[in-house]
This record gives sequence, structure tokens and C-alpha cells, in this order.
Amino acid sequence: MPLIVQKYGGTSVGSLDLIRRVAARVKAAQASGTNVVVVVSAMGDSTDRLVDLARGLCAEPDAREMDVLLSTGEQVSMALLCIALRNQGCEARSYTGSQVRIVTTGVHSRARIEKVETERLRADIARGVVPVVAGFQGMDESGDITTIGRGGSDTTAVALAVALEADECQILTDVDGVYTTDPRMVPAARRLDRITFDEMLELAGQGSRVLHLRSVEFASKYNVPLRVAASFGAGPGTLICREEPRVEAPVVSGIAFNRDEAEITVAGVPDAPGTAFRLLKPVSDASIEVDMIVLNAARAGNVDLSFTVHRDDYGPALRLVKEAAAHFAGAQVNGNDRVAKLSVVGVGMRSHAGVATRLFETLAAESINVRLVSTSEIKISVLVDEQALERGVRCLHAAFGLERPS
Amino acid sequence: MPLIVQKYGGTSVGSLDLIRRVAARVKAAQASGTNVVVVVSAMGDSTDRLVDLARGLCAEPDAREMDVLLSTGEQVSMALLCIALRNQGCEARSYTGSQVRIVTTGVHSRARIEKVETERLRADIARGVVPVVAGFQGMDESGDITTIGRGGSDTTAVALAVALEADECQILTDVDGVYTTDPRMVPAARRLDRITFDEMLELAGQGSRVLHLRSVEFASKYNVPLRVAASFGAGPGTLICREEPRVEAPVVSGIAFNRDEAEITVAGVPDAPGTAFRLLKPVSDASIEVDMIVLNAARAGNVDLSFTVHRDDYGPALRLVKEAAAHFAGAQVNGNDRVAKLSVVGVGMRSHAGVATRLFETLAAESINVRLVSTSEIKISVLVDEQALERGVRCLHAAFGLERPS
Repeated sequence: MPLIVQKYGGTSVGSLDLIRRVAARVKAAQASGTNVVVVVSAMGDSTDRLVDLARGLCAEPDAREMDVLLSTGEQVSMALLCIALRNQGCEARSYTGSQVRIVTTGVHSRARIEKVETERLRADIARGVVPVVAGFQGMDESGDITTIGRGGSDTTAVALAVALEADECQILTDVDGVYTTDPRMVPAARRLDRITFDEMLELAGQGSRVLHLRSVEFASKYNVPLRVAASFGAGPGTLICREEPRVEAPVVSGIAFNRDEAEITVAGVPDAPGTAFRLLKPVSDASIEVDMIVLNAARAGNVDLSFTVHRDDYGPALRLVKEAAAHFAGAQVNGNDRVAKLSVVGVGMRSHAGVATRLFETLAAESINVRLVSTSEIKISVLVDEQALERGVRCLHAAFGLERPS
Repeated sequence: MPLIVQKYGGTSVGSLDLIRRVAARVKAAQASGTNVVVVVSAMGDSTDRLVDLARGLCAEPDAREMDVLLSTGEQVSMALLCIALRNQGCEARSYTGSQVRIVTTGVHSRARIEKVETERLRADIARGVVPVVAGFQGMDESGDITTIGRGGSDTTAVALAVALEADECQILTDVDGVYTTDPRMVPAARRLDRITFDEMLELAGQGSRVLHLRSVEFASKYNVPLRVAASFGAGPGTLICREEPRVEAPVVSGIAFNRDEAEITVAGVPDAPGTAFRLLKPVSDASIEVDMIVLNAARAGNVDLSFTVHRDDYGPALRLVKEAAAHFAGAQVNGNDRVAKLSVVGVGMRSHAGVATRLFETLAAESINVRLVSTSEIKISVLVDEQALERGVRCLHAAFGLERPS
């Protein structure tokens, strides 16, 4: 009998009524001849409420105790879902991360899963019982409760699917799949029936909020087919899997974008080993995440370094870079926190020349200035003025033929 | 260094502000040169809120899942208390019942503690860390979460005190000790400095709501001194311990009472083996708790049986007894749900004759009619009309010399 892992996010279990509907869906899947293992997140905003409680006591609550506190959120929703399932006549048993023995590193609030024991889950599955597992949490070797970071329930689901050798891992959520771009911005955006892990990784990394990056990496590494679909709907969603030979692989699968970028440029620093390191180290020491990095040795002996950070980090990052640049005579630091990034993603780029050309041509025709460019094997990202973002997404979506057939 | 277990109930940790005050008290105890282990209940009404959630899904939620759900309440308060303690510079670590390995029977919602492992707690104590343990919960042999019944946090505290061979188990609550009777009814009621386990057991069983009956039994069995005191106050409270030879042991320690009684009387049933059993079995099969039972074979060949139940159970109990009595020709069933019980408790009764005499004399002088009497070695309980309860408590409190010296 096939085995699937179904993960339901916080909005899907946000009320008793929704929990009943999730139970009905789980029961229907089980009744259709599929074994189901369920992973749940905490109800709606309950995690935020717990965080607020702790912050009410202390600005920086102890990380070990925060994990003890936050892990109760999933424990509540897993128990309620089992109560609803049993009330609908479907045998179910809930398990915390500790009870399953999802063993993680001991780094509280961002532990990594090291091992998943499956004994109890397999025993339940063999008896036709639906195991309902708390997402987002595990235990370290000493038995302390850990959490694996926000959005970690997706990762829990994939880890269980890997350990149980499930046929598919379904991430059931409030959108009905992965789109060519955000449908709120481009009404003609199209749901993708399938997409490769690599493309999904680029999309997830480029601002598409459908899936947690780590869960996609994990699924890709162990080749577990991932499906993103609506919790309450019959649609097939989007299947994320390994690349398969296709007659007509689309060149570009989607356009991702990120509004909240800020750009910092350092011009006129010496072209010597360690320059970029000395400029960027204070920024990363301050735990500020750097996204695009472009280094250009345009003039002999000098380089220009540009990079982007999240807009919230712009002030501190600019200050740190100015301090670091003060060690280089003649260095000029400039910044702009009104920029946005857009990315064209597709495995077809590998074998098709001309994607970059068409991208620049399209943006130029719209008079959109490109401030920075960075590329990977299956992605081209450009930084533009934030006012140009929406026009940019729309014209690229059209130029690469991503619209829904009308 | 002495070791004490301090248990704080739900009202004592009912808000962030109160949690801060509890932390300050724990820290002060630790700083005074005492090792402290803390047991906490769920915050205020959080257990009721969780019960309401489950009942919103199902009238009779699965018992295993209810324990998973309810155990989150203590997990939240233990984490918050540790965050507050650490914020005040006091090292603390929280533990669920499963993490301590408080091993219980597998009877969900009313499990009994079988074993308490102390390895992690002793390691913390040795390092000067305050362990904060969730009350009310444990795990069964298979690793499932169990709960030990409402008010079970007192029992958790005593079980930890026994296992750790603590010098004292302190139940810190919203009253400042055990009184000769309810001070709301008798303003002259006096706080007792000390009381024996046996007396406390009778008081707890007779409506005094200060301590959970099981915790007193447990403490008595293993001879752990129990102290009831106010969470937020400096008073010494009441020490509950084994009887010690005292020069002037008081005859009576306190007057307990219970308002919500109902009485059922069956008259004229045959005086034969099994009669009481056949009348009471349907009642206990329906999980209705029977309190006083008085059987009187006043007339040859016939007995009269009277017993009391909680007023909420009066309707079903009366119906069940009427059905059972229908098998006995001539049996008459009567009931009264407007009765109350008052009890005079004291170890001194054992050696002092005349307590019953003075009790009846005192009530008679107040024209209070006694409907039922039942006695134990250190207690006499009488059932009276509910309108007479308050007068009865006051006159007995005075008659046995329990008032505070004025």
C-alpha cells in the first residue's frame, strides 16, 4: 500500500472547524487505500502568542526554555487533530518529536535533524492507525526538547518521508501550488504541474514563500517527491521532483522577486586578496545575511564591490561597511535601500542560450535600469529600482511565455 | 545543604507578573542556602481552556490525546518560570514529567505514579541549578504522556520530595495555612501551626480544599513533612507531619464542612447478606461517589440504609436506587438534596472521651437536628439541614475552643 506524509500548516489547523476539515481529508486519504502519516504545525498564531509571553518576561529569553515553550504549540494541535480523527472513526495517535525520537543537534531554536526513529510509526501504520506527529520539534541526545526553526514543519515532514521511505510528501497549505510568479502581481500567472527540485530551490531562495528552503534541499538530497497543494481543495497542486527528460522542457519556469532589498556599494578599494573578506566579515559577524555579491575589477588595481542585504539590516550594514572601508584610502561607500530583486528561474536555461539576452532586451524595452546582475546555472537575478519591480515581473512573465493560455 | 520541594499552584503562576514574583521567591530560598526543586501547575485557567477546545471537537475526547493536550499547560508555565528565574540570575532548567521519567500506570487522566527517576534532578542540584518540573503529568512504560488527575501537582511535588529524600515539601498557594475551619465562615478561625497527617487527611476528605487527598496520603506513607503556606507572604504556614508527643495536644484540631451533599434513604429492605451491595452497586457502577454510608438494623428482619452523594449526582443516584429497591417488596426510597455535612476532626479524640457528647449537646442547644452520623477514629461527621450548616460550624468552633485568642 502506498505511504504518503501529509503536512498541514498553521493556517490549515487554525480553528476547530478547520481541524475537523483536515481530519476529514486525512480520513478520506486513508480510506482510499493509502497509508497516511500526518505532520502538523501549531494552530494559527499560537506560536506568536507564546513568543509574546516569553518576551513579556525577558527581552532575550533562554533558548532552551523557548524551545520547551514553543514546542507546546504543535503538541496542542496534534492532540486536537487526533481527537477529531477519532471522533470521525479514524484511529490516530499523536507523537511529539521526543516521542518519535526525532534526534537533532543541541542548537536550540535552530537544531538540525540527525536521525528519525520509525519503530512506533511503522507499528501504527501496520495496524492502520494514522500517526500524527508534531512538526518543528525534536530532541537532542540528552533528551532536551529542540526546535528546528520557523517553517521547520516542512522539514519534519520531509525527514519523516525519507525515514519511512514514503512514496510522496505532501505540503498542504493555503495556496494550490507553485506558480510561474505571484498571482497577486500577475493575474495571468499559471500553476505549474511539475517543477524540478533545483528550480524550486532557486524560487524558494528568491522570495517564493511557498516552501521552506531546507525542506526542498532535504527532499532533493533523498529524492522524495514533494507535492504542494491546497489543504482544502481537490486540485493536484505542483509536484516537485527530479528532472526527467521532457520533449519540450520550458526554458523558464518562473519569475521570483523580492521587494525588501537594500544595496551597498564600495568603490575604489585595492584589488588584493582579502579585500572582500575584510569588508564583508563585520557584516556577517553581526549575523546580517548577505544575498547578492558582485565584485568587479573594472579598473586596474581597483575593485568595486556591491552586495545586497535585507532592507531591515540596511542601517547597521552600511555603518559596518563604512567602518571597514575607512581602512582603505580612497574607498567610497554608497547605498540604496529602495531596490528590489527579480529572478528568472528555469532548468531549461542550461541548454538554451539567449535567456540573459532576452531578459536585458525586455527590461530595456520597458526602460528598466539593471543595477546588479548575478547568475547561477538555472537562474538570473537582477536588482532594479523598487518602482520598476512590478512592471519588470509582468513584462518578463510575458516575454518568457509563462501566461495561462486564455 | 537542606533540600526542599516547592510547589506553586495555577493561581500563583496565573500571570507574567506573578511568575516573576514566584521566581523571586525561589531565588531567595536558593540564596538562603537551601537547594530548591520547583513543581508548577498550569497557568490560571489554561487547563480549562484546553478542555474547552477538545470538547469543541467531541463530547468525550480520547483519554490518551486529552493527556497529550492538557500536559502542555504545565509545560508552558515551567518554561516561563525558568525564563523568569534566569532573567533574575538564577540558573534553572525545566523538565516535563517524561523528561524526569515520572513513570506512571497507563490509565490516562488518572494515572498513578509508580517510579520517579532522580538522576537529572540530582545532577542539577549538585551544580546549583534549580530544576523546575511540570506537575500533574508523567509517562507510562511505553512512553505515552499521562496525567494523574486534577490537583495532581501536589502529588507530583510529594513524589519528588520522597524520591529526592527532601527535607520538606512546601505547597505554596493562595491561603496562608490550614485553619481550624473556613475563615470566611468563622472570622475567629485560627491558622494551625502544625497538624498531623491523619488530621489533614480527614480535613482534606471532609471538604477542606487546601490540599489534594492523595498528596497527603503519599506524604504520610513516606513521612515527608508537608508545609502549606502562602505563595506571596512570609508566614510559616502550617506544617503537616507525624504525630509527636505533645504536653497538651488539642482534642479537636478543626471543623470541616461540605455544603453540596444529598442524602438518599432506603427503608424496609430485608436484613440479609448482599442487600447493601445490591442497592449501592448500580450507583458505583455509574461512577457516582458515595460518601457517608449508614446502615441500621433497627427492626427485626429489616434494615434502613442511608448514604450521601454529591448534590450534582442526586438525580441519577436516586433513580438508580429506586430501580434497585424495586426488587425488594415494601422498600421505601426517600431523598433530600438540601443537606450539608460537618465534621469535627482531631487526633486528641482517640484518648478523650466525650467529644461526641459535646458535639450533640452543642448542636441540640442550637436546635440543630442531626440526620446521620458517621465516625472514624479521629473524626465525627454529622449530616444536617443545609440552613443549619453555618450556625453549626460556628457553635462547634466555639464549643471546642478553636477561636483565635483575642
